[in-house]
Amino acid sequence: MDISILSIFPRMFDALNESVIGKAQEKGLLNLQVIDFRDFTTNKQHHVDDTPYGGGAGMLLQAQPIYDAMSYLETENPGKKRVVLLDPAGKTFDTKMAQSFAKEEQLVFICGHYEGFDERIKDLVTDEVSIGDYILTGGELPTMSMIDATMRFVPGVLGNNFSAEEESFSHGLLEYPQYTRPADFRGKEVPEVLTSGNHEKIRIWRLKESLRKTLIRRPDLLETIDLTKEEEKLLREIRSEM
Amino acid sequence: MDISILSIFPRMFDALNESVIGKAQEKGLLNLQVIDFRDFTTNKQHHVDDTPYGGGAGMLLQAQPIYDAMSYLETENPGKKRVVLLDPAGKTFDTKMAQSFAKEEQLVFICGHYEGFDERIKDLVTDEVSIGDYILTGGELPTMSMIDATMRFVPGVLGNNFSAEEESFSHGLLEYPQYTRPADFRGKEVPEVLTSGNHEKIRIWRLKESLRKTLIRRPDLLETIDLTKEEEKLLREIRSEM
Repeated sequence: MDISILSIFPRMFDALNESVIGKAQEKGLLNLQVIDFRDFTTNKQHHVDDTPYGGGAGMLLQAQPIYDAMSYLETENPGKKRVVLLDPAGKTFDTKMAQSFAKEEQLVFICGHYEGFDERIKDLVTDEVSIGDYILTGGELPTMSMIDATMRFVPGVLGNNFSAEEESFSHGLLEYPQYTRPADFRGKEVPEVLTSGNHEKIRIWRLKESLRKTLIRRPDLLETIDLTKEEEKLLREIRSEM
Repeated sequence: MDISILSIFPRMFDALNESVIGKAQEKGLLNLQVIDFRDFTTNKQHHVDDTPYGGGAGMLLQAQPIYDAMSYLETENPGKKRVVLLDPAGKTFDTKMAQSFAKEEQLVFICGHYEGFDERIKDLVTDEVSIGDYILTGGELPTMSMIDATMRFVPGVLGNNFSAEEESFSHGLLEYPQYTRPADFRGKEVPEVLTSGNHEKIRIWRLKESLRKTLIRRPDLLETIDLTKEEEKLLREIRSEM
């Protein structure tokens, strides 16, 4: 997969050389290109920003450097591109969007900065995406999160032992509590069923705890999935225990 | 503000040496300490993870290295700590949480990895936080986003010309479209009102465009704010134009 990033802070993306995404790059599963769009400015001072028309505090990214960086990218790497711009008014990023991004051949992320950007930049963009109801000083950090979440769905990235599909938000329920060694950690014990060796009991306990956590913390998720008869029975049990 | 991070990928946090957060560190507004909890393992191989009780794919972070890293932190830097752990079942991070984090003297972020963590780690934690309905390979990237969003509310970080309070999600409406020079960029023109010099007309145009965008894209936000008479009138105009 080809991912290109337009940013004036290209060194921040060194963080993607570590861990799982670093390995994905080593394996050739991800070709990451970071373009410093400051290199495309036509003014002597290499400014990428200017004051807003109509007045107001703060500076806005200008259209020209970003338009010209995109033209460069198209020359270097022609073809259909999904172009993502972070915007608080955009569609909220989630697992489904990550899965859809993972199917693209070329993804481009434009990292905004300062207090906003010239509206005309949006004409270059296929997806205006919000990362959540909070504001950041720049698009770099959330872009890295989106790349990480997306790459998990690219075959080979997570290895054979594990499938991204198995987790929270893929099957629609929150994860059950998990425990690893030791069974007694400073007086805190693992639930007995997990060390019982009874696989059917363990399966039911986990399903029930998933349902319990989802019911308590994210009941909205329960409305989006078709529950099995077993799940409905366990939910009735949980409700009567509460 | 003191922020400590427990992570097995400490180099990723070099990304916070850039841009606004880098400057906040230079100004002494942020003391960032990254602790590699692998240094606290008691096994020869320095493993931080083990298989889950009850079976299943993937590895879990063990409690011991994280407990001992937290004890070390408490010795080094005693005092009340807000301890944040990312968990998909947690409360969703937003501007209000960022503002509340910004008031703390000591924030600690525990970065999970692999396919999860031993449930007993949660006993150390004051806030289980979800960054959104998507899964990442580790807690490092979203932790950096949370630090960035939080630091914006620490006085002095954004400078005098600008207040974090003015933006989207602080006043409850999405941002109006913004434009900077040139007025005609490759045939794309700035809306005339913005170059009119009529401040009252500009104010009304911006308010109306904010309301329009919020109505179209995030009508849920409109329900959470008390609209002024002027805003109600503009909303009626927008609805009749649609």
